[in-house]
Amino acid sequence: MKEIVYFVPPPGAPAPLEKSVFRTVRFNEVDPMGILWHGHYVGYFEDARVALGDSLGIGYTDFFNRGITLPVRQMSVDYLAPLTFGRTYEIKARLFYCDAVRMNYDFTIYDDKHKICTRGMSVQLLVDQNKNLLLERPDFYEKLVQNWKEGKIK
Amino acid sequence: MKEIVYFVPPPGAPAPLEKSVFRTVRFNEVDPMGILWHGHYVGYFEDARVALGDSLGIGYTDFFNRGITLPVRQMSVDYLAPLTFGRTYEIKARLFYCDAVRMNYDFTIYDDKHKICTRGMSVQLLVDQNKNLLLERPDFYEKLVQNWKEGKIK
Amino acid sequence: MKEIVYFVPPPGAPAPLEKSVFRTVRFNEVDPMGILWHGHYVGYFEDARVALGDSLGIGYTDFFNRGITLPVRQMSVDYLAPLTFGRTYEIKARLFYCDAVRMNYDFTIYDDKHKICTRGMSVQLLVDQNKNLLLERPDFYEKLVQNWKEGKIK
Amino acid sequence: MKEIVYFVPPPGAPAPLEKSVFRTVRFNEVDPMGILWHGHYVGYFEDARVALGDSLGIGYTDFFNRGITLPVRQMSVDYLAPLTFGRTYEIKARLFYCDAVRMNYDFTIYDDKHKICTRGMSVQLLVDQNKNLLLERPDFYEKLVQNWKEGKIK
Repeated sequence: MKEIVYFVPPPGAPAPLEKSVFRTVRFNEVDPMGILWHGHYVGYFEDARVALGDSLGIGYTDFFNRGITLPVRQMSVDYLAPLTFGRTYEIKARLFYCDAVRMNYDFTIYDDKHKICTRGMSVQLLVDQNKNLLLERPDFYEKLVQNWKEGKIK
Repeated sequence: MKEIVYFVPPPGAPAPLEKSVFRTVRFNEVDPMGILWHGHYVGYFEDARVALGDSLGIGYTDFFNRGITLPVRQMSVDYLAPLTFGRTYEIKARLFYCDAVRMNYDFTIYDDKHKICTRGMSVQLLVDQNKNLLLERPDFYEKLVQNWKEGKIK
Repeated sequence: MKEIVYFVPPPGAPAPLEKSVFRTVRFNEVDPMGILWHGHYVGYFEDARVALGDSLGIGYTDFFNRGITLPVRQMSVDYLAPLTFGRTYEIKARLFYCDAVRMNYDFTIYDDKHKICTRGMSVQLLVDQNKNLLLERPDFYEKLVQNWKEGKIK
Repeated sequence: MKEIVYFVPPPGAPAPLEKSVFRTVRFNEVDPMGILWHGHYVGYFEDARVALGDSLGIGYTDFFNRGITLPVRQMSVDYLAPLTFGRTYEIKARLFYCDAVRMNYDFTIYDDKHKICTRGMSVQLLVDQNKNLLLERPDFYEKLVQNWKEGKIK
C-alpha cells in the first residue's frame, strides 16, 4: 500500500512531534455491521491530538486561557480497515511544522499487530476573541516552535 | 471564495442527483465555544446522503437486503463558517456519476441566508457478504444508473 | 400495561403543557442489534423538551440570556419497546406544574401506530451565574406560571 | 447527603460485585456550560458495566455468542455535581444479586478527591434469539451466580 501523505513540510523543517493514545471500541460506537461508525473516528483523532497538545503545553486550555481558540478548518479521513467492537487501537497524532500560523496534524490508527487501519489529518486555524485570524503565533507557542526547530523538543 | 471541487465526472456524465434535508443544531452538539463540534458534521452529511439514497431506491436498506454493505473509504470536510446552536441549516447531498463501482457524494451546508458554511465529500465502496469488493454494480443499481444516463432521473 | 407515573402534581394544579416532535432513527444511532442504543434516548427527550420550552418562551436561551442555567438533577428512562433504524417516532414532552422552583418534564415516545415505546422523565433545577440555586422563579417564568394556572395557556 | 439506594437485595444475598474504570471528560462531550452533557453519562456507566461484565465472564460477547442479548429495561441517573472538561473521574459499577433473571447494576462516579458526583442504575433483561424473555439463567451465568453465593467470587 502506498503511503498517504497529507503534509509536505518546507525544506529544513524539524521532524513532526508525535504522541499515541490507546482506545477500545465501545458498544455504542459500532454500527449494525459491528464496526466503528465512520463518524466516530473524529473523536478518536481528537483524543490523540489533545494528548499531544497537552504534553507540549499547547493544548486547548493553554490557548483558551490566552483568549485563543483553534477552529478546525479542514479534516480528512482515509478508512483502510475497519475497527471492531471491544478491540483496542493505538491512535498516533503527529504535529507537522509549517511556516503559516496553523496547526497541521496527521493521524494513524494501528491495530494490535501494528497494521495501519486508518489515516487522517486536520488543519486548525488560530482565532482571537474578536474572531480574527491570528497572523503571528502567540509568544508561548512561538517559543515552542523555536525550541522545536533547534532540536530541543522531540 | 473559490469553489471547492471534490469530483470531476468523466466527459458525457449525467449531472449529479441531489437532495436536501434540514437540521437544527442541538444543545448537546455544540462545544464550549457554542458552535457545532467538528465531528458532528459527519452525521449531518449522513442525514442528507441517506435521504438522497432512499429517495432513489439505493439506500442502505436497499443494498443491505441484497447482502451488500457500503463502507466509507474516504471522507473530507472543509469548515468555512461555524454552525450555531438552535439555528436550522440546509444540508444538500449530491451523488456524482463515476464509471467505477463506488458512491461519490459531496455535501454543502447552507445557513438560512443560503450562505455556504461547509463543504464535504464521501466515497463509499460496495462489499458483499464475504467482504469482497464488488467490481460490477448490482442489477437494481445498474438500472438506476442507466436511467440516470438517459436523463430519466433528475 | 400499567401506566407509569413520574410526577403527582399538587391538588388544583393546572394540567401539564405538552408538545411533540418527530424524529427518525439514524444509522449511527443503532447498536449491533439494529435498535436505538439506550443512551441516545436522552437526546430524543431533549429535542422534545427544547421544542416545548421554546414554544412557551422558557427555552434554554430565554433563561441563559438572563444568566440562568438549568442543570439536570435527575433523569429516568423506562424502555418498553425498541426503536428501530429508519422508522420515525413521536416524542412528546409534558411540563408538570410544581410549587418548587424546578422543571419537571416527562416524556413518551410513540411509534407510528401510537403504541408507547418509551417513557421517561427529567428534573431540572434553576441556577444563577454564581452557581446558587434559585429559590424563586424569575419574573418571566413566574408570569407564564400565573397564566398557566389561570388557564390562559394550554 | 443521604445515600441513594436503587436496589435492595433479598436477605442472605451475596455482596455486590464491583469494578471501576477511569475516564477523562472529552472536549466534544461538554456542553456550552463547560460541563459534561447529561446524556453522556449513560456511556460512562456503560464503560464500567462492560468492564465488570467482561472481568466476570458475563460480558455482552459472552451472552451474544450464546444467542442472548441484554436489552436495558430501565435506567436512572442522579446528577449531584457536574463533571468538567479534562478532568478524570472514577466510574464504579456494582452488580447486585437478585433472584429474578435480570442484571441490576448501580453506578457511582467519583472525582479525584473521591467525592461522589453522580449516582445511577440500570436494569437489563435477558432475551433469546426469538425475542423471548429468559425465565431461567443460562448455565454459564448460573454457574457464576452459584460461585458468587458461595463466596468464591468477590
